[in-house]
Amino acid sequence: MLNMLIVGASGYTGAELALYLARHPQMNLAALTVSAQSADAGKLLSELHPQLKGIVDLPLQPMDDVSTWAKCADVVFLATAHEVSHTMAPQFLAAGGVVIDLSGAYRVNQADFYTQYYGFEHQHADWLDRAVYGLAEWQEEAIKTAQLIAVPGCYPTASQLALKPLVAGGLLNGEQWPVINAVSGVSGAGRKATLGNSFCEVSLQPYGIFTHRHQPEIASHLGIPVIFTPHLGNFARGILATITCRLRPGVTQAAVAASFHQAYDDEPLVRLYDQGVPALKAVVGTPFCDIGFKMQGEHLIVVAAEDNLLKGAAAQAVQCANIRFGYAQTQALW
Amino acid sequence: MLNMLIVGASGYTGAELALYLARHPQMNLAALTVSAQSADAGKLLSELHPQLKGIVDLPLQPMDDVSTWAKCADVVFLATAHEVSHTMAPQFLAAGGVVIDLSGAYRVNQADFYTQYYGFEHQHADWLDRAVYGLAEWQEEAIKTAQLIAVPGCYPTASQLALKPLVAGGLLNGEQWPVINAVSGVSGAGRKATLGNSFCEVSLQPYGIFTHRHQPEIASHLGIPVIFTPHLGNFARGILATITCRLRPGVTQAAVAASFHQAYDDEPLVRLYDQGVPALKAVVGTPFCDIGFKMQGEHLIVVAAEDNLLKGAAAQAVQCANIRFGYAQTQALW
Amino acid sequence: MLNMLIVGASGYTGAELALYLARHPQMNLAALTVSAQSADAGKLLSELHPQLKGIVDLPLQPMDDVSTWAKCADVVFLATAHEVSHTMAPQFLAAGGVVIDLSGAYRVNQADFYTQYYGFEHQHADWLDRAVYGLAEWQEEAIKTAQLIAVPGCYPTASQLALKPLVAGGLLNGEQWPVINAVSGVSGAGRKATLGNSFCEVSLQPYGIFTHRHQPEIASHLGIPVIFTPHLGNFARGILATITCRLRPGVTQAAVAASFHQAYDDEPLVRLYDQGVPALKAVVGTPFCDIGFKMQGEHLIVVAAEDNLLKGAAAQAVQCANIRFGYAQTQALW
Amino acid sequence: MLNMLIVGASGYTGAELALYLARHPQMNLAALTVSAQSADAGKLLSELHPQLKGIVDLPLQPMDDVSTWAKCADVVFLATAHEVSHTMAPQFLAAGGVVIDLSGAYRVNQADFYTQYYGFEHQHADWLDRAVYGLAEWQEEAIKTAQLIAVPGCYPTASQLALKPLVAGGLLNGEQWPVINAVSGVSGAGRKATLGNSFCEVSLQPYGIFTHRHQPEIASHLGIPVIFTPHLGNFARGILATITCRLRPGVTQAAVAASFHQAYDDEPLVRLYDQGVPALKAVVGTPFCDIGFKMQGEHLIVVAAEDNLLKGAAAQAVQCANIRFGYAQTQALW
Repeated sequence: MLNMLIVGASGYTGAELALYLARHPQMNLAALTVSAQSADAGKLLSELHPQLKGIVDLPLQPMDDVSTWAKCADVVFLATAHEVSHTMAPQFLAAGGVVIDLSGAYRVNQADFYTQYYGFEHQHADWLDRAVYGLAEWQEEAIKTAQLIAVPGCYPTASQLALKPLVAGGLLNGEQWPVINAVSGVSGAGRKATLGNSFCEVSLQPYGIFTHRHQPEIASHLGIPVIFTPHLGNFARGILATITCRLRPGVTQAAVAASFHQAYDDEPLVRLYDQGVPALKAVVGTPFCDIGFKMQGEHLIVVAAEDNLLKGAAAQAVQCANIRFGYAQTQALW
Repeated sequence: MLNMLIVGASGYTGAELALYLARHPQMNLAALTVSAQSADAGKLLSELHPQLKGIVDLPLQPMDDVSTWAKCADVVFLATAHEVSHTMAPQFLAAGGVVIDLSGAYRVNQADFYTQYYGFEHQHADWLDRAVYGLAEWQEEAIKTAQLIAVPGCYPTASQLALKPLVAGGLLNGEQWPVINAVSGVSGAGRKATLGNSFCEVSLQPYGIFTHRHQPEIASHLGIPVIFTPHLGNFARGILATITCRLRPGVTQAAVAASFHQAYDDEPLVRLYDQGVPALKAVVGTPFCDIGFKMQGEHLIVVAAEDNLLKGAAAQAVQCANIRFGYAQTQALW
Repeated sequence: MLNMLIVGASGYTGAELALYLARHPQMNLAALTVSAQSADAGKLLSELHPQLKGIVDLPLQPMDDVSTWAKCADVVFLATAHEVSHTMAPQFLAAGGVVIDLSGAYRVNQADFYTQYYGFEHQHADWLDRAVYGLAEWQEEAIKTAQLIAVPGCYPTASQLALKPLVAGGLLNGEQWPVINAVSGVSGAGRKATLGNSFCEVSLQPYGIFTHRHQPEIASHLGIPVIFTPHLGNFARGILATITCRLRPGVTQAAVAASFHQAYDDEPLVRLYDQGVPALKAVVGTPFCDIGFKMQGEHLIVVAAEDNLLKGAAAQAVQCANIRFGYAQTQALW
Repeated sequence: MLNMLIVGASGYTGAELALYLARHPQMNLAALTVSAQSADAGKLLSELHPQLKGIVDLPLQPMDDVSTWAKCADVVFLATAHEVSHTMAPQFLAAGGVVIDLSGAYRVNQADFYTQYYGFEHQHADWLDRAVYGLAEWQEEAIKTAQLIAVPGCYPTASQLALKPLVAGGLLNGEQWPVINAVSGVSGAGRKATLGNSFCEVSLQPYGIFTHRHQPEIASHLGIPVIFTPHLGNFARGILATITCRLRPGVTQAAVAASFHQAYDDEPLVRLYDQGVPALKAVVGTPFCDIGFKMQGEHLIVVAAEDNLLKGAAAQAVQCANIRFGYAQTQALW
């Protein structure tokens, strides 16, 4: 049994991670921590997330000295703020553990990316070099030997799973940038009190137009520019991305279908639609990313849907852990 | 034209009041104020409530010296916290204005009520004596000459409109207390950032069991004890109260119906159902309280529904103003 | 007072029309009709739409002989199926009334449009020639003398109000088609029982990709091709359209802003945002279309929001009637 | 491995049952059937419930001859209409299988119950005698040897789990009937197209006041009369029951708590709250029934919450199967 530690376990992603680990036959949820300053320190996880009562009744222990916690865990999930992961990951790594980071701190290996988009200077270029981007379906070999896995953000997971087969197959017209319109549930903003996330204030609206930091994460890993427009939706969970692309002249429907099937036919957590496109309800509460598409002439619309907290966070993190340690990718995920 | 001032105008009730006054042919919305400490001071009301853009673009002016503001208004609506209303109402009254208070500060004329339920000692027993409780359908004559009108809370309005005809007619069995189960929309908690009101945290749940201060407000004005169990519902607006009563032996369905018809047939803002009971959708966005009932033997279930921000707050406040100044009760309300 | 008739009044649009007309000072809601075969014939409108109880308690009369009904109305609103409007409009027009048609039957003056997209052969080319497309802000002069006004669909209203200033100003790059991603509330599908619209089945999803008939309506009236992808949203009312365009090289932010201000500064029912873009909550329950935009280089994203039943249907229909008869455009609309 | 058959598998309960059985280590989901007349016959379950794609892709086979299907199954779950279960259960039982019936057809062993509340004459008094009511926490011994298990309805499960310890302990005042106010998600009405369940029509409302057939089911099994008022809530899943009781004089808080702890401390699927009462979100998606209570003098309010499709249907059915065949009660349930 592997001993697993979740750091920053009080949020929505932490709760989902804990549930998966609680039912994983080869993993033992050793402990949960939160910032020592958190008002939640000392509480049971199931006090914050009552659905876990009787399933995960572990306390949220105050995170003090990393070295103490490093000893008790083979694998550390960091469900922490970017700056916290940035600092803590090397500490856990130095102690020999495998770190699966759900923040943005090790996702893009570019010198000025963090200065520009995250507002801090990255101090750990060595680990940035060695980090493996945890887009599981495309990094399986690298994940198997990774010590640091940087799990992609929720929007980037859906967007890249939808576009990567087309880019890999050279099917897209380089003159026109793919237009990614994506709508996310409110849980994507985290578990906290803000006026903007209060029940009466939430309604469908775009935000971060041209400025959201998932845009450069997507573009960097795809290798092509994209227009990315995120929206807040009036639902708790899920992401639906509608992506409008221009194909190179002459690309056939069969070629598009083949690129998706080649990429995902052997992947248990991406579900391709031979007909139609996914609705959000198909994926909420599941670990899958569902993908469908429609074509008309050179115009292609790809629709990808996932649960932002699961395939967009906790499920993909556990999927990476399963791959890393040789278990079935879907172990504990449904 | 009467000049109207809304104090504490930044919240959901303030926005609804402003909309009504903006379309009232005999009332002029002179100004809006908020606490001088509020981060909203200086903003337009329509920046906070974008649906009002182009309709009410007045600024939220910082509230400093009451006497200055008293001069510009014939009528003051206090959409303020209880303690603020408690202090400010006498100041405006001293300047000669009519005050319509939407807080709880002048609703119950009992010495220790405020100490026990609101946590402050009431300093204005004289005004408490003179305040008229603005349950409009039952206080019409008193409202016509009132200088201070204390508009009932949202739960008490629905609960009392449902029960008062039965109490007045002596139809209830005194041995068993009416059981009021009511569900309110999240807007009832006000416009503010709290974890409990955040989108992902809201779900149907009871709160304040045996301890909510609307219970003594209801019991005091009805003159009988009641069991009152409020619930938070997963919707923005509206209250639905399901009230289970025991009738005195021998009370007929016709007698119950007659008590309601006698009370409300001439009242334009209470709608009686001859068949069935109201659903929440019947009243959201409207100034009405809808009432229906079912009987079986001595058991009676009365269902009352209203928009908590309208008949439960802003609409009843304007209804009181209309009565006070001799306009049609429904003026500007739809 | 003008006498107004609503044909096909049982649906959500009919209810909104009836409410507007009930409070219009220069219009009299003379009668409501439904198909003689409808199970709703004979019921009060307020039985179907209980929020209207006490406001519009008129019966839904069975529609039999058009000539009888034509006599009682100066203006006829057709809130009927396309095929029904197609047949009935000429009958009412022959009797001399003004017809405001909310269906698609007279929106596009092209020979084969109805064959291709609506599945019927259009029989009334003469009236198709004379029909005025009721996109109110752009057709004001023509509406003033129109006998037949074809009110645009909900998606086309938002899409065209957002794009028409840019097309008129010659600001768009002709090489790339605007990408319109729009999400509509479930009420857009009408008041009827279908599995797809049942509460537990609704979730965010695209539909009608490349095949929705609002695409050719939009493209035809704009005069440029567009990609239009409609989505069903998990809310009752409203449309939010996020439109991604490519500008001609050198077009400045000031030029884009100027095109919008020139088009709408004098229009009371389009609200421009100098900063930010609209959220759905800004428009639900209001007669407005709200528009904002963001630019980055040659990329422009315009966001338009409206209530699909109001500016997308009933409010625009009444706006057209107000223009036609010389009343303030906003009369009765808020 | 036990072979399991789900009859009437197309609905929401069928989908949940299929998911549980797909991950049950000792049970094999052998087949799914629907009525031969159903439009869904021949489709995959995952076409109707896309969240199951890749997990349960079995077809919905047309149900013709019971004897054929009886051969392939050790256990039959009947997720069918009451009349269908009434007829089919004896056929499967005659073939030797264990039948777990989720309909109401075998829940109450009273001669005239079905005539009065279900509208049909019960033809199988012998099986009615032998049926075990599957309220799992109270029938564990009987379930272990049952051939026919009649799983309680969703409202009765929550209501009885909340009240049974009080009745068993003799704590309730016999003069006053418990008042059960319960709110259910729309999925309780089943997967079908009705106007009342359409997205735009659903809002919080009581229904079936004094007439719902779960009232006599509850009263019959509790052995005391109750007032039961069900409500439709504006959410897909879950039931919250707020139950107001009168205690016998002198009953202490400790006595109430003791009655609950004695009943449920060893029961893994009932979670007691030492403080507070449950919110709906605590149970949605889980197999638990959560219970909390508050007292004031002789007044007691018990709140019970469950997922209507899980502890109120599919999870309790699988819990009964687990008990029947000697597996852990929670096997496959989370």
